[in-house]
Amino acid sequence: MQKDREYMQKLKCTVSYDGTNYSGFQIQQNANTIQAEIEKVLLKIHKNKLVQIHGSGRTDKGVHAMAQVFHFETTIQMEVYNWRKAMNALLPKDISIEVIEEVPEDFHARLMAKQKEYRYYVLNTKDRNVFKRNFTHHEFGELNIHTMQEVCELFVGTHDFTSFSSTKSTVKGTKVRTLYEVSCTKEDDEIEFILRGDGFLYNMVRIIVGVLIDVGLGRRTFAEVEAMFAKMDRGAVGVTLPPQALFLWEVIY
Amino acid sequence: MQKDREYMQKLKCTVSYDGTNYSGFQIQQNANTIQAEIEKVLLKIHKNKLVQIHGSGRTDKGVHAMAQVFHFETTIQMEVYNWRKAMNALLPKDISIEVIEEVPEDFHARLMAKQKEYRYYVLNTKDRNVFKRNFTHHEFGELNIHTMQEVCELFVGTHDFTSFSSTKSTVKGTKVRTLYEVSCTKEDDEIEFILRGDGFLYNMVRIIVGVLIDVGLGRRTFAEVEAMFAKMDRGAVGVTLPPQALFLWEVIY
Repeated sequence: MQKDREYMQKLKCTVSYDGTNYSGFQIQQNANTIQAEIEKVLLKIHKNKLVQIHGSGRTDKGVHAMAQVFHFETTIQMEVYNWRKAMNALLPKDISIEVIEEVPEDFHARLMAKQKEYRYYVLNTKDRNVFKRNFTHHEFGELNIHTMQEVCELFVGTHDFTSFSSTKSTVKGTKVRTLYEVSCTKEDDEIEFILRGDGFLYNMVRIIVGVLIDVGLGRRTFAEVEAMFAKMDRGAVGVTLPPQALFLWEVIY
Repeated sequence: MQKDREYMQKLKCTVSYDGTNYSGFQIQQNANTIQAEIEKVLLKIHKNKLVQIHGSGRTDKGVHAMAQVFHFETTIQMEVYNWRKAMNALLPKDISIEVIEEVPEDFHARLMAKQKEYRYYVLNTKDRNVFKRNFTHHEFGELNIHTMQEVCELFVGTHDFTSFSSTKSTVKGTKVRTLYEVSCTKEDDEIEFILRGDGFLYNMVRIIVGVLIDVGLGRRTFAEVEAMFAKMDRGAVGVTLPPQALFLWEVIY
């Protein structure tokens, strides 16, 4: 009889987290991170054997995820339903595994991600709201939703986004990315920005939404924003908005 | 000419707060409280002169307020608009003064409160929600909204609520209270309980909603709840639900 090779299963996990109390997704020394919390739980389940997870990408300090994706490999045989139950029982209350599925051994959460969607929430009121402070950016000034919607269209399509990414970006090679959707809609006092694309540079969402808010406040015109692309200069653009209003909404494979 | 007596203004403030990080409203030694934060701010504004505030009542550790009310007296002459601006500029981000108005000198936030409204939020899903964990109580089991609504009616009107208040209650005298509204409605996965009355005993809202949830889960019948009133026994009732889902919603004068 042929000897079986060791059982090995690859699992794809979709996780939601409230990033308020974390220094971001990716593990780093002396910091409280989502990855560290999840690996702590897997260490327990694997009886002190280190199991590394591989995320679809980082999220920054204070940024949330509705559906971040990661994968890991395990020699433990367990139904996916029980995997989810076991992990959620051990995870802190601000991290929750939403879906677990078995995937082929060539699956990779980062390399195989085709699109990502981010959402950014702006509270547009004179007064602050104590219950939304960890999940929105508060803009006192009245925003013109129509001019913002017009300028959204400038970002859709394939562009070099050098002007709209942090100079701290460590990306090598091209800064050309394709955005499939850039939109904003208003409901009551809240404005929801949706950005979906094949990839995002460092701080890109928070910089683009910052430009759109400048437009909404009347500080920038359509033509001025149009001209920013060619400048290839982060300095020509504007502020990077704060992180607590940003959600990694979906990773599409 | 007659000498003016010292200028003294009485101000009524409506305040909202996220109670997550506080040990309740009322000031107490070695604890982080809403009252302490507000009095710290007034101390600053009054140049180190202590100004005490008088709340409409306490809220417990972890309980929130959409509109708690307090009053204080001041010798500082300032427009109410500027009072609000000055206080909010100094308060932490989880406490916000919503309204300030000048009131006659016989106004008292506690003694003159005619009614209070509380709301309690239950998330009725199989899965937890990381973003609502500080503002809802999570009930896994499926709740029957119709039987709960029927039983709500039992609590409306004038009753002795001894069975539905904490034995730690320090109230002297009658435990008879009048509730004007007790209702529950479901929207998506969330159930909103509204209780409005002329007064509430210690833990009364969290105990009554606990009974209603037992009813919704099929653990208690209409007749059993009806019989609880006459027992005058907290032990005959059920658990006290956790605080983070409770909001002091309005104080009516």
